[in-house]
Amino acid sequence: MFSSWAARLETADPTWDLAEGERRGARLVIPGDSEWPTQLNDLEDRAPYALWLHGEANLRFSCLRSVAIVGSRAATPYGAHLAAEFGAGLGERGWSIVSGGAYGIDGAAHRGALDGGAPTVVVLACGTDVAYPSAHHDLFAAVRAQGLLVSECPMGVRPVRPRFLIRNRLIAALSRGSLVIEAAVRSGALNTAGHAASLNRVVAAVPGPVTSEMSAGCHRLIRQGSAVCVTTPEEMIELVGVMGDDLAPELRGPVLPRDRLDPETRRVLEAMPVRAGVGPAVIATAAGVDLETVLSCLGGLAAAGYVERVAKGWRLRPDRPPRQVAGKPAGGVTEEPAGG
Amino acid sequence: MFSSWAARLETADPTWDLAEGERRGARLVIPGDSEWPTQLNDLEDRAPYALWLHGEANLRFSCLRSVAIVGSRAATPYGAHLAAEFGAGLGERGWSIVSGGAYGIDGAAHRGALDGGAPTVVVLACGTDVAYPSAHHDLFAAVRAQGLLVSECPMGVRPVRPRFLIRNRLIAALSRGSLVIEAAVRSGALNTAGHAASLNRVVAAVPGPVTSEMSAGCHRLIRQGSAVCVTTPEEMIELVGVMGDDLAPELRGPVLPRDRLDPETRRVLEAMPVRAGVGPAVIATAAGVDLETVLSCLGGLAAAGYVERVAKGWRLRPDRPPRQVAGKPAGGVTEEPAGG
Repeated sequence: MFSSWAARLETADPTWDLAEGERRGARLVIPGDSEWPTQLNDLEDRAPYALWLHGEANLRFSCLRSVAIVGSRAATPYGAHLAAEFGAGLGERGWSIVSGGAYGIDGAAHRGALDGGAPTVVVLACGTDVAYPSAHHDLFAAVRAQGLLVSECPMGVRPVRPRFLIRNRLIAALSRGSLVIEAAVRSGALNTAGHAASLNRVVAAVPGPVTSEMSAGCHRLIRQGSAVCVTTPEEMIELVGVMGDDLAPELRGPVLPRDRLDPETRRVLEAMPVRAGVGPAVIATAAGVDLETVLSCLGGLAAAGYVERVAKGWRLRPDRPPRQVAGKPAGGVTEEPAGG
Repeated sequence: MFSSWAARLETADPTWDLAEGERRGARLVIPGDSEWPTQLNDLEDRAPYALWLHGEANLRFSCLRSVAIVGSRAATPYGAHLAAEFGAGLGERGWSIVSGGAYGIDGAAHRGALDGGAPTVVVLACGTDVAYPSAHHDLFAAVRAQGLLVSECPMGVRPVRPRFLIRNRLIAALSRGSLVIEAAVRSGALNTAGHAASLNRVVAAVPGPVTSEMSAGCHRLIRQGSAVCVTTPEEMIELVGVMGDDLAPELRGPVLPRDRLDPETRRVLEAMPVRAGVGPAVIATAAGVDLETVLSCLGGLAAAGYVERVAKGWRLRPDRPPRQVAGKPAGGVTEEPAGG
């Protein structure tokens, strides 16, 4: 391995690199500088010797509360939408994004973060002066104004394939956790997730349609227990945030009118017939309560619009208060619980 | 609780129930009968005293290798599609389906199982002679011919709300595991999943778009570790099948032409420039190999269509063999790894 370095030594020109970096507006930070992110020490002998930075943000502060968003370049509209939503949602809550500079998930996440007003960190596999891909020229300009371009490479270095994989360890190490938004079974994003896991960082993945190949890598991580299933920015923050302080709100279904009924009244309501009316004695038997209870409950249920008196006795009102979450076919008369 | 039973005792007429069941073509099975599924003993004091069956299949044999498919009545087209796919896919592999008789996931799963040629088991919350919902009249007729209608209730009993929840324990207990295909955060399907977990049965859930409320219940189960993430029938069979015998095939990305290159040739290929050609000495330095190796590798790479000779030296061929999975934008010249 060292022989390959020796051959390159002849072409190295650190004086030119430093002058060219300064001319381009970039700065070089090394371990010990106040802007150096000390979490890179976790990389041990794979830690970078120096980083080129170009942009207004401070690298150390930007990465203190940061999440790596990674995923496929060939993202679907679903993936690109979610990358932007997570970028913006994390940004609005004071979390910055670390990602690459590629098409698809990377670009969408940075755009979302910029919209969310957060500094965003683009870790490149080429010099910070090389706009790669070139269609991201304007995006990188916006990132320099509000965030940072970061690279191990000096000015002018163009990306070659192995550099992307080498670069991925920096994305994983700079952030508190990596979130895979879309990844095929064979994807560079899974390489970043592997780095994050080996650094004891959080690994999370967003599920998607099982019919989409672009979610297959996420599902495999989740299924194997290598990643936590995450569906909202709040859930991601719960994983990477301070224990107890950054809990995601618990998902609850809507509170339905019948939830507010007392248990006896609910039993009477649940024993009511749908179509033909029946007498209070039949309802009492079906509900397992006494006749007096039925009579008193029926009055309340009728007043609240749940039941009505018909020729043969009592029945449920066809237009009674809604019991069901959005999505139920209109006019259903079933008493089956949702999803039953 | 016993007082409510006492009141109902007056209306019980077992002689009529048996005669009416026979007249309708149903049969009554009790513990000790050869058709009784002994896994119901796991319910202990909540085990049914007897079950009414109507159909050609044998209940005990049908449930030996069975999966409960549960989910929302208000299923999306995605959920209904998957329920049918899992029903058919499990059926084709010798696994039968246990589910309710509702619209949405239940009905789609049974239809899929019938298509897959498997006996399918509909556990009803009403008498087996009551077609509820009535639009499933034809489905239930097909189930009687190829599978079974099952109920704790004698003939003529109509469904009321609590019976669906009570019925769910039978769906969970009859099968080796429950698979939730779509469920809102508040859903009867989660009630069945809870029964399955308390009976030490497998609980699995299918992920979906995080933008769909109908997948939110599945994602919560997966996120909490209450359910395994399952994306194919094979993965479900791996969970409920015989350890070692029923392993799902491991998901792999496609084998790409460059995978077949030897390591040195791959290093040379990865060091090749995209646009402007360069000489072999520059490539040797970038790849970290000696000049002789580069010259021999370039010949092979050119013959295989990866590189070409241009005015200034060698470069990647714009139309070189595909390196990337389906979904990559055509004509991309990047050397970035997929998803990178």
